Amino acid sequence: MMKGELLYEGKAKKVFVTKNPNEVVVEYKNSLTAFNAQKKGEFEGKGRINCEITCLIFEYLKSKGISTHLKKKISDTEILVDKVQIIPLEVVLRNRLAGSTAKKFGRDEGTALPRPLVEFYYKDDALADPFISDEQADVLGFATPGQMHELKRQILLINEKLKPLFKSAGLDLIDFKLEFGTTQAGDIVLADEMTPDTARLWDLKSGEKMDKDRFRRDLGSVQESYEEVLNRLQGVLSGK
Amino acid sequence: MMKGELLYEGKAKKVFVTKNPNEVVVEYKNSLTAFNAQKKGEFEGKGRINCEITCLIFEYLKSKGISTHLKKKISDTEILVDKVQIIPLEVVLRNRLAGSTAKKFGRDEGTALPRPLVEFYYKDDALADPFISDEQADVLGFATPGQMHELKRQILLINEKLKPLFKSAGLDLIDFKLEFGTTQAGDIVLADEMTPDTARLWDLKSGEKMDKDRFRRDLGSVQESYEEVLNRLQGVLSGK
Repeated sequence: MMKGELLYEGKAKKVFVTKNPNEVVVEYKNSLTAFNAQKKGEFEGKGRINCEITCLIFEYLKSKGISTHLKKKISDTEILVDKVQIIPLEVVLRNRLAGSTAKKFGRDEGTALPRPLVEFYYKDDALADPFISDEQADVLGFATPGQMHELKRQILLINEKLKPLFKSAGLDLIDFKLEFGTTQAGDIVLADEMTPDTARLWDLKSGEKMDKDRFRRDLGSVQESYEEVLNRLQGVLSGK
Repeated sequence: MMKGELLYEGKAKKVFVTKNPNEVVVEYKNSLTAFNAQKKGEFEGKGRINCEITCLIFEYLKSKGISTHLKKKISDTEILVDKVQIIPLEVVLRNRLAGSTAKKFGRDEGTALPRPLVEFYYKDDALADPFISDEQADVLGFATPGQMHELKRQILLINEKLKPLFKSAGLDLIDFKLEFGTTQAGDIVLADEMTPDTARLWDLKSGEKMDKDRFRRDLGSVQESYEEVLNRLQGVLSGK
């Protein structure tokens, strides 16, 4: 077994050292949290589903020329990844306004935007991951203008690849959050995850929410929705 | 009397039409509000003090080559100004972190910054003037990138002029909020006000707060502090 000591435990994943100092193992947990972990839940199989969805998407992005930290899947809930220095920004892309941002601007849930909107949130649980401007990130030393430019370039490109993928799976990619890390070589690569925990996915026909909003808003069928997202992605990607 | 019908009433000022469609009269009220008007107060003479402080500062900036909407003072509490189209952004400059922004980043009140930080807030009382990024302002259509570039240029320049002015008056200019408007000719000029309602001013020797935080935080001597700011500015500017 390649997994060594626990390096870090987050809300949805654990990270373990390996014998190779440049690689770590990420284990997906069954826990679900919302509102900065004030609301907690879990369901059996959630770690497996999100691990598999992330692998499918990261492999797909890799095939489109986008670098990620993923090396390989090692079990139902574990992946081996390059050890990267996580840039402390949550990078959010919105194709439509939803959730707290729709509310912030007094717009309807699902309001269309003239072009994708990229936002940064400062990753700090104690501060509840505040929304920040580029200038705040720069002046406070969270990221350099060059890093932010690269993060925007990458998430816009990733959106261009993922929107049609989800569309083929009958899903409207409303918004999503990514995290990026810096490799030993100094490259910025996609890290963390891409799952219904970190994206809003609406069924293209019914408009039904197929993501963590089912848990946040007590809409029921959380597990069934996550499984449905996985099944649809598997269907689309195995057919290619 | 040049004042016609009431055009608009805000929290601290009223705007009246005049016979000239390109000019309006601004009347400073005695009211004080905080926390998006959830806290209300007033004191006799406040309108007069803030009207005079704005005039002193706007005249000083004009002497330094900065354009403002101010034409002339017409009474203790009234000024005649160019009618401008207000850009719906509160433009904030921070020399140090204080108030809600210090809290947002978990920093001490008064934390120094490596360079002045400029922020935009979307002017909308119903939405409680949310903090926004340049990209949100652009995508949502509140201001163009060109306008935001010009607003930043002007507030940074204004800060360079005002910091030494306040220093001569024994005051540390911690942060301040400005509003700008577009003239008939299409120029962006400083509008609204610059007062202890819209700036944090700390006594350079004692560190004592001399601004609206005395009201927000129930520190007492609100009126005395506003008058002291006016007296010191008058002292400095009459000596020049």
